Amino acid sequence: MRRYLGIDIGGTNIKMATVDSRGRVEARGVIETRACEGPAVALRRVAAAVPQLSRARGVARAGIGCAGLIDASGVVRHSPNLPAWEGKHLGRIARRLLGVDTSVANDATAAAWGEYRCGGNDGCDDLVFVTLGTGVGGGVVSGGRLVRGARNFGGEVGHVCVVKGGRRCHCGARGCAEAYVGSYGMVRTAREMLSRRSGRYLARWVKGEGRRLTPELVAEAARSGDAVARAVMTHAGEHLGVLVASLVQVFNPEVVVLGGGVSASFDLLLPHVRRTLARQVFSASARGVRIERSLLGNDATAVGAAMLARDTEREAKK
Amino acid sequence: MRRYLGIDIGGTNIKMATVDSRGRVEARGVIETRACEGPAVALRRVAAAVPQLSRARGVARAGIGCAGLIDASGVVRHSPNLPAWEGKHLGRIARRLLGVDTSVANDATAAAWGEYRCGGNDGCDDLVFVTLGTGVGGGVVSGGRLVRGARNFGGEVGHVCVVKGGRRCHCGARGCAEAYVGSYGMVRTAREMLSRRSGRYLARWVKGEGRRLTPELVAEAARSGDAVARAVMTHAGEHLGVLVASLVQVFNPEVVVLGGGVSASFDLLLPHVRRTLARQVFSASARGVRIERSLLGNDATAVGAAMLARDTEREAKK
Repeated sequence: MRRYLGIDIGGTNIKMATVDSRGRVEARGVIETRACEGPAVALRRVAAAVPQLSRARGVARAGIGCAGLIDASGVVRHSPNLPAWEGKHLGRIARRLLGVDTSVANDATAAAWGEYRCGGNDGCDDLVFVTLGTGVGGGVVSGGRLVRGARNFGGEVGHVCVVKGGRRCHCGARGCAEAYVGSYGMVRTAREMLSRRSGRYLARWVKGEGRRLTPELVAEAARSGDAVARAVMTHAGEHLGVLVASLVQVFNPEVVVLGGGVSASFDLLLPHVRRTLARQVFSASARGVRIERSLLGNDATAVGAAMLARDTEREAKK
Repeated sequence: MRRYLGIDIGGTNIKMATVDSRGRVEARGVIETRACEGPAVALRRVAAAVPQLSRARGVARAGIGCAGLIDASGVVRHSPNLPAWEGKHLGRIARRLLGVDTSVANDATAAAWGEYRCGGNDGCDDLVFVTLGTGVGGGVVSGGRLVRGARNFGGEVGHVCVVKGGRRCHCGARGCAEAYVGSYGMVRTAREMLSRRSGRYLARWVKGEGRRLTPELVAEAARSGDAVARAVMTHAGEHLGVLVASLVQVFNPEVVVLGGGVSASFDLLLPHVRRTLARQVFSASARGVRIERSLLGNDATAVGAAMLARDTEREAKK
């Protein structure tokens, strides 16, 4: 069976996986990105690491999912976490250093393709993927094809505005979903709420045990019944619900898949997402929309990138 | 040259046009909808009217753009302006009464296709269309194909939420773009602003001359320098800008086309839309996005429906 190499490039780590033509992961590896060294050094280290992935020989093609805006020719156009990579032709560099043709896409776009091809969503040709990490990203499959847009920058669902004139987002705009949902948005909400309601359980935990305020800690506190933590979850879930509702109005998907680290709190967020969705969307359109937690988890981008490589090869053969 | 019949069904009127295979309108007609009589009576009247469109004979196929949610098989699933039409199989009824195969789509979806095929946007395979009528509708072409969704209900851009928990919309949800932009939203804004600032020019006009408060009157007053009317335009333009910005983040289109009656105030709205877009969207993605006024105007839905009929015929022949 043919084998593909999927590469997930983030600001901190590069995850690699060899994937068979059915999307099953054969081997995994991870190296540091060392973002400041630029893409050529990093991809040389990827090339060195790949033979160590036990069954990686005989990779037919590679796929890269990279943080940032990647244009249609494979050039990194904008990437706050990989500034030294901007303007670099990732596809060409990878071709040279890995020795195989390489497809390049945004990391969340690749993950969306992974969820479509291998995430248990067979036959769902209309799928919205939202990844809740530090920030919020995503990708959309419409009619069985990725929504790429004129310059390949489509699918930036984290920067859909949910509150006109709302919180300032990292991107400079106001009211983006990312400013409310995902790790950075939720920690901000928790800080705001704790500054208003003192002496609560979550606050005592942070102060007493000296633990850092993270979405994981908030989730843990919410599960133990802490009122502030629960309010943070409600706040995040409702804002996520508004985002999901708008995406349902525009794409009328069969399934909305939530991934990323924060999706570990899927069970805490889901009731608020569902309630908001029911309020915001015509019943005819909302009816039957499934909201699922990512099955691929941390593998989504690498598997999706490998599947993009596979499907690009198939297209080329036609 | 082959000829197609485009039918634009609204709550008040049915507009018809015969269109050649290049999308040029040969003849136009209009009849009343008389919504409560249902689709069979209406389409019988369409059939009777068509021979009167001078060169209508020899229509190869028909296309219908109908207000409401239309499913993939051509059944009206939800239509506030055509309640008696819900559950009716428009495609089948049209086939029987018009004697030709008929494609059926949502009216704004059809208009988006018209703008894509005949609106001077040749080669723009990524196009967002927003129609500002009483309400706000739209349609999206992504990669040269309509975004239809799992049940064919995609493209409902008017119900993207721009203000979480904001104004109640006709659809029952809160903060939809439609509650701020379009004729109904703008009149509401004007009323709110007039109730707060009495004795202004616009108010005197409405009271003195007894004219009805409409977007046209607001535009007229804004052009004469009325401060309240200008504030209404700013308010609408900024909310429209937030909607357009979110659609640009998700679709990365080459062009955003604004149609519908309110687009007569395109010049008054555009600066606010542009300013909001510049604030809300990454420069890499926003750069080069054109915002244009519809070239097809009132013909958009009928022409688009005719072009859907033409393109469905072409697909079938492949």
